[in-house]
Amino acid sequence: MAPGGAKKNILERLDAGEVVLGDGGYVFELEKRGYVKAGPWTPEAASEHPEAVRQLHREFLRAGADILQTFTFYASDDKLENRGNVQSFTGKQINEAACDLAREVADEGDALVAGGVSQTPSYLSCKSEAEVKAIFMKQIEVYVQRKVDFLIAEYFEHVEEAEWAVQVLKTTGKPVAVTLCIGPEGDLNGVSPGDCAVRLVQAGADIVGVNCHFDPVTAVKTVKMMMEGVGKAGLKAHYMVQPLAYHTPDCNCQGFIDLPEFPFALEPRVLTRWDMQKYARDAYDSGIRYIGGCCGFQPYHTRALAEELAAERGFLPAASEKHGSWGSGLEMHTKPWVRARARRDYWEKLPPASGRPHCASMSTPAGWGVTKGDAQLMQKKESTTQDELKVLFGKTH
Amino acid sequence: MAPGGAKKNILERLDAGEVVLGDGGYVFELEKRGYVKAGPWTPEAASEHPEAVRQLHREFLRAGADILQTFTFYASDDKLENRGNVQSFTGKQINEAACDLAREVADEGDALVAGGVSQTPSYLSCKSEAEVKAIFMKQIEVYVQRKVDFLIAEYFEHVEEAEWAVQVLKTTGKPVAVTLCIGPEGDLNGVSPGDCAVRLVQAGADIVGVNCHFDPVTAVKTVKMMMEGVGKAGLKAHYMVQPLAYHTPDCNCQGFIDLPEFPFALEPRVLTRWDMQKYARDAYDSGIRYIGGCCGFQPYHTRALAEELAAERGFLPAASEKHGSWGSGLEMHTKPWVRARARRDYWEKLPPASGRPHCASMSTPAGWGVTKGDAQLMQKKESTTQDELKVLFGKTH
Amino acid sequence: MAPGGAKKNILERLDAGEVVLGDGGYVFELEKRGYVKAGPWTPEAASEHPEAVRQLHREFLRAGADILQTFTFYASDDKLENRGNVQSFTGKQINEAACDLAREVADEGDALVAGGVSQTPSYLSCKSEAEVKAIFMKQIEVYVQRKVDFLIAEYFEHVEEAEWAVQVLKTTGKPVAVTLCIGPEGDLNGVSPGDCAVRLVQAGADIVGVNCHFDPVTAVKTVKMMMEGVGKAGLKAHYMVQPLAYHTPDCNCQGFIDLPEFPFALEPRVLTRWDMQKYARDAYDSGIRYIGGCCGFQPYHTRALAEELAAERGFLPAASEKHGSWGSGLEMHTKPWVRARARRDYWEKLPPASGRPHCASMSTPAGWGVTKGDAQLMQKKESTTQDELKVLFGKTH
Amino acid sequence: MAPGGAKKNILERLDAGEVVLGDGGYVFELEKRGYVKAGPWTPEAASEHPEAVRQLHREFLRAGADILQTFTFYASDDKLENRGNVQSFTGKQINEAACDLAREVADEGDALVAGGVSQTPSYLSCKSEAEVKAIFMKQIEVYVQRKVDFLIAEYFEHVEEAEWAVQVLKTTGKPVAVTLCIGPEGDLNGVSPGDCAVRLVQAGADIVGVNCHFDPVTAVKTVKMMMEGVGKAGLKAHYMVQPLAYHTPDCNCQGFIDLPEFPFALEPRVLTRWDMQKYARDAYDSGIRYIGGCCGFQPYHTRALAEELAAERGFLPAASEKHGSWGSGLEMHTKPWVRARARRDYWEKLPPASGRPHCASMSTPAGWGVTKGDAQLMQKKESTTQDELKVLFGKTH
Repeated sequence: MAPGGAKKNILERLDAGEVVLGDGGYVFELEKRGYVKAGPWTPEAASEHPEAVRQLHREFLRAGADILQTFTFYASDDKLENRGNVQSFTGKQINEAACDLAREVADEGDALVAGGVSQTPSYLSCKSEAEVKAIFMKQIEVYVQRKVDFLIAEYFEHVEEAEWAVQVLKTTGKPVAVTLCIGPEGDLNGVSPGDCAVRLVQAGADIVGVNCHFDPVTAVKTVKMMMEGVGKAGLKAHYMVQPLAYHTPDCNCQGFIDLPEFPFALEPRVLTRWDMQKYARDAYDSGIRYIGGCCGFQPYHTRALAEELAAERGFLPAASEKHGSWGSGLEMHTKPWVRARARRDYWEKLPPASGRPHCASMSTPAGWGVTKGDAQLMQKKESTTQDELKVLFGKTH
Repeated sequence: MAPGGAKKNILERLDAGEVVLGDGGYVFELEKRGYVKAGPWTPEAASEHPEAVRQLHREFLRAGADILQTFTFYASDDKLENRGNVQSFTGKQINEAACDLAREVADEGDALVAGGVSQTPSYLSCKSEAEVKAIFMKQIEVYVQRKVDFLIAEYFEHVEEAEWAVQVLKTTGKPVAVTLCIGPEGDLNGVSPGDCAVRLVQAGADIVGVNCHFDPVTAVKTVKMMMEGVGKAGLKAHYMVQPLAYHTPDCNCQGFIDLPEFPFALEPRVLTRWDMQKYARDAYDSGIRYIGGCCGFQPYHTRALAEELAAERGFLPAASEKHGSWGSGLEMHTKPWVRARARRDYWEKLPPASGRPHCASMSTPAGWGVTKGDAQLMQKKESTTQDELKVLFGKTH
Repeated sequence: MAPGGAKKNILERLDAGEVVLGDGGYVFELEKRGYVKAGPWTPEAASEHPEAVRQLHREFLRAGADILQTFTFYASDDKLENRGNVQSFTGKQINEAACDLAREVADEGDALVAGGVSQTPSYLSCKSEAEVKAIFMKQIEVYVQRKVDFLIAEYFEHVEEAEWAVQVLKTTGKPVAVTLCIGPEGDLNGVSPGDCAVRLVQAGADIVGVNCHFDPVTAVKTVKMMMEGVGKAGLKAHYMVQPLAYHTPDCNCQGFIDLPEFPFALEPRVLTRWDMQKYARDAYDSGIRYIGGCCGFQPYHTRALAEELAAERGFLPAASEKHGSWGSGLEMHTKPWVRARARRDYWEKLPPASGRPHCASMSTPAGWGVTKGDAQLMQKKESTTQDELKVLFGKTH
Repeated sequence: MAPGGAKKNILERLDAGEVVLGDGGYVFELEKRGYVKAGPWTPEAASEHPEAVRQLHREFLRAGADILQTFTFYASDDKLENRGNVQSFTGKQINEAACDLAREVADEGDALVAGGVSQTPSYLSCKSEAEVKAIFMKQIEVYVQRKVDFLIAEYFEHVEEAEWAVQVLKTTGKPVAVTLCIGPEGDLNGVSPGDCAVRLVQAGADIVGVNCHFDPVTAVKTVKMMMEGVGKAGLKAHYMVQPLAYHTPDCNCQGFIDLPEFPFALEPRVLTRWDMQKYARDAYDSGIRYIGGCCGFQPYHTRALAEELAAERGFLPAASEKHGSWGSGLEMHTKPWVRARARRDYWEKLPPASGRPHCASMSTPAGWGVTKGDAQLMQKKESTTQDELKVLFGKTH
């Protein structure tokens, strides 16, 4: 394979109209594999268990990902302090380890490495613009030193904080992508997707879009609203979408966080590979060219995107050696009635049952509606106490 | 850690009344990770991609598994021939590689290695007892030479074939476990679970039970029927259960194979970690001491078994460093209403929604009801042709 | 039309192999129309609002009913006392009025009038056989004097009380039918359907079966168990079935009473007319010839039975002038896509959605499991007090 | 009771801020009772079976209805011609009979009689304004001669035809109400609810709103959009709402007509009495004062409205003699666990199960999207032929 320097960079790919596939949701998948703790969601595994992170990178690469994001979600120092674990590794060490792992695997193929920053507890606690930007700068320094290919500011609930992040990232001279975790109702202050996108492009972002919090249907719809907004403003940008692998038709503006099932009972909502093919097609037809995933994505979900867009990309991913398109591998199944499922028509039309006759199909989201500045969102290093929790328990219905 | 030879063997553990946790479903999980092909379901990845198999072994070990099964499902020569892939590795090489991988990881902890054989195409094609036994013997030779700790004959739909397997396995002098993939209605010839178990104990099995094909509720129920049968016959045995991680209340006698969603749209049926804790408790309360999993199990499912039975076992598994019991890790979540979910009461009572309002909760199984000897089950090396498939398509409704 | 005396009686019809259609559920339907109070469920409307009862009789007759049951459910004096209403009418007056209304409408066609008795509070309160029989006798005297065509003892949870009822009814010399409100698990003391039926035939019943408490699928299954029991005992009888018009796959042995939705949220369970046609066919194919309905039946449900069995009966009911078979009336609908539903194939295959995405498909029944003699079942004239209710509220989950 | 002339008229009631309860859905309820044919949906029963119509009027009156609508839906001559029945009665006779029945029962209480006109096949077939108005005029002449208290133009899919109707109705000097069968997306030409309402008020309507086609949640939302539109235009009006008694969260712009279940498998969608109380409260809180029902309403649904608004109206309806508020009548139930349901808290929170585990919770509407002028909507006297139907069958999925 070509050394990193010889690869086409992200903007060259998008400018050429190529489809760029993102990778999937490291945090949720590594939680299931036993390396990330739900609640703090911090990425110390990059230092503690590098073999696990390396393996997941490799699986996404095999599945067709063109981008490997450094496993640095919530790896800002203010967040790591909050995670309630003994800290054997500094934030800098974790960010460095994550960069090295992503680079190692990316160079097993033609993939690019993207370094990321995300929403900070400092912003939610009303720290100043300078303080929040200093947090971002600290992570960026590692990315520049470790030579990531480009930068992504992702998972922002407030466009203002995302603008600040973009401004910091632009100082590096590298291409900058930015995604909000919002739906059609806009950010938590009610700024519409279109207006958010315009502000982010004006802040300097090359690529804008959404990630996390909502299912593919909702996420693609939101990015289309961003496209319209940017177009009306007479601006130009590239677009990306990295939704959940969970169906969330019942979400309110704060997405799957508000669903009663978050984060430990989301299983019935997981998208099938066929749902994923539909998503890939819809995103492509909407004009989005950077198409990836977030929480809930496993490697087979990414492979489904690559298989749906194989004609557009010109090739199947490595992992398709173990997957027949549209179930054709079932031709070799023992049972004849399973062989009868080896066809697109069968899987495309099948509405899958839940096997849960005592469960409803939709949830009522929690909907507390609090946002930046609310006392309950103030940054704390300590776990919530039992007494504080009792007050919270009383508020849930 | 102690070297393999110094570990207590499987029967010493069970005789002492200890809980023994099995590992999970390699085939389905590696399919999602991109290393196994659905349809043939063969384990050539042990030779092709050993790092992927090693990593999954390690995750199950961390999750609390006391047993690592060699990744040798369907690794008999007659099945490997059928898999329709170019064969870069012989059956012997694959079986050897799988033994080495399991041993390597097992010795990172106190786990035992179990070598396995399973249902053969030869039996379904009405080959003779001698021919079928020769298939088993070929795999066993590798297991003996590679010094696995004990043997498991698993995934048999017909008790007769399982008896033959047990007879072959007993020739090694190693402890022998055997599991049928049956439910309360018995094997595909209608032999009841109780009668099946009696026959298997009489054939020499030390441990009997069920694996695959049904959900935990059904599987535990079936093993209880086995216990009753063995007890009534005045015999004794140890019991094991390794069910699916999928809810299957709508299955008929042939289990999840007959569900229209098998194998590519089972996502909505996946058990949550809380469902798994209930399963662990039910199995334990039923007197079953070898408690594991099969298709659909991910490492976090196994960890849930270990956490539910932590008091009985006297310790938490390594992976619990990244998991608060009953959601307590959520005390450190950013959002206060998610912190309010950091309690057993919340998760135990929550009926999770599917997010799929256009899908039913149950399926109508296919129910072709064919079994050993049916023309359509005859062993073939070739994929089913399009013409043959058209006949099958016409039969599905 | 022929005067009452010239009609073929019930046994002549059944002996000739004719299909006899019962009518539907007066109590539940008149509750919805505003004339019966849920809770006491007593039939004082026969005296208070005769026009409403007459109209419903007429609708069932038009729908094809061959039998009109007197509107005398729970019209025993011990039950009427319990109903908590000012009593403007004596039990005798109500029973007389009900007989007159049924006769008036029956003689508008070829229908027979059946007088009924049902389970008494006296039995549940452990009164003696003599006391319970005296209750029945009091109602019977009116039926004899008012010349009903035959008698039905219905809605018994305990076969013993039903035997007593049959013994009293037999003293009149009229044909006697008897139905228990039980499912496949048998009566509340666990006497199997087969054994129940044998005892009732031995007590003198000409027709045995089940009514109320369960859906058609369950009710037909239960009557088949009765048939088998009677057959094995070398006895003979006619069979009848009068199930609910509600789907109850989730019921335990006490039927829909135990469902959390009883009686005010059963709407989503109502059978469609197409479900009813399936029921009529299943009952007929099982050899049952007296086929009717109970709670939840509206006239269009009865008409669906008559339309399904039109060939066997040789005619369509009067109300079919306003109903095209299998939706054929839709040929005249304004919208072309609704006209496209004018066919059997469409309605037979349609699984109807509930429009309730926040509701599950099954309930967990209450399952208190109390029966005759339990302190909480003792007969009382007073409403349960708020203090007593609080104890009950605490018991429900 | 006071003679008709002495009653307060509809505008006096609404001007005084009184709640006015409408009655329910005659057409659907009489279809179930055996007197109306689905497809043509015409009201010849007013002449053929007056006792059935009279009884249903009486039940709605007892349930609390302040208005009895003449049973004249689709009673225009151009529609009656289309109904495919032998015509024993002229349109004039049917309209006269319907007026007499409504007046007779209304004068048993304090109710008013409203005469109605509705959407015509002539409009859908592109007849001229003069021709369509002539159709309305013919019905109006009967209403004037029979002295109905006021007029309602209802069930219009196109605001233009509704304007024409209002203009004709205003010539009588009687108060005029008008309802469209539209949802938040507006009429079939896409005119918004707000704009529709403004045009209808400008055409002379005293009361505007919606009826039929959508569930209460959707209908109340739509009327609120009408209120906003009228308010912004600086106009004033009274508002009414008469929704379905079916849950329709899955409808598109043409409402329940497009649901696959229409009209013969809507049972699982029926609102409970508790759903109805919620609807009554929501409508009242939205400022709507004329609150009624349409297809699917049975008398107990109307009673639930009257019970919810008993404090505002100052009295309970007659039929509440047979209904305890919030299930309190269950205090007299035989079973203690049913007595435990005698409380508001229980019924208000209960999500009712469907008992249909093989059915989804939502449907995919047909969505043909044809409207006025489409060839397939042209007026025809004949039933659709089998050949024409085959073309339609092929279009449904």
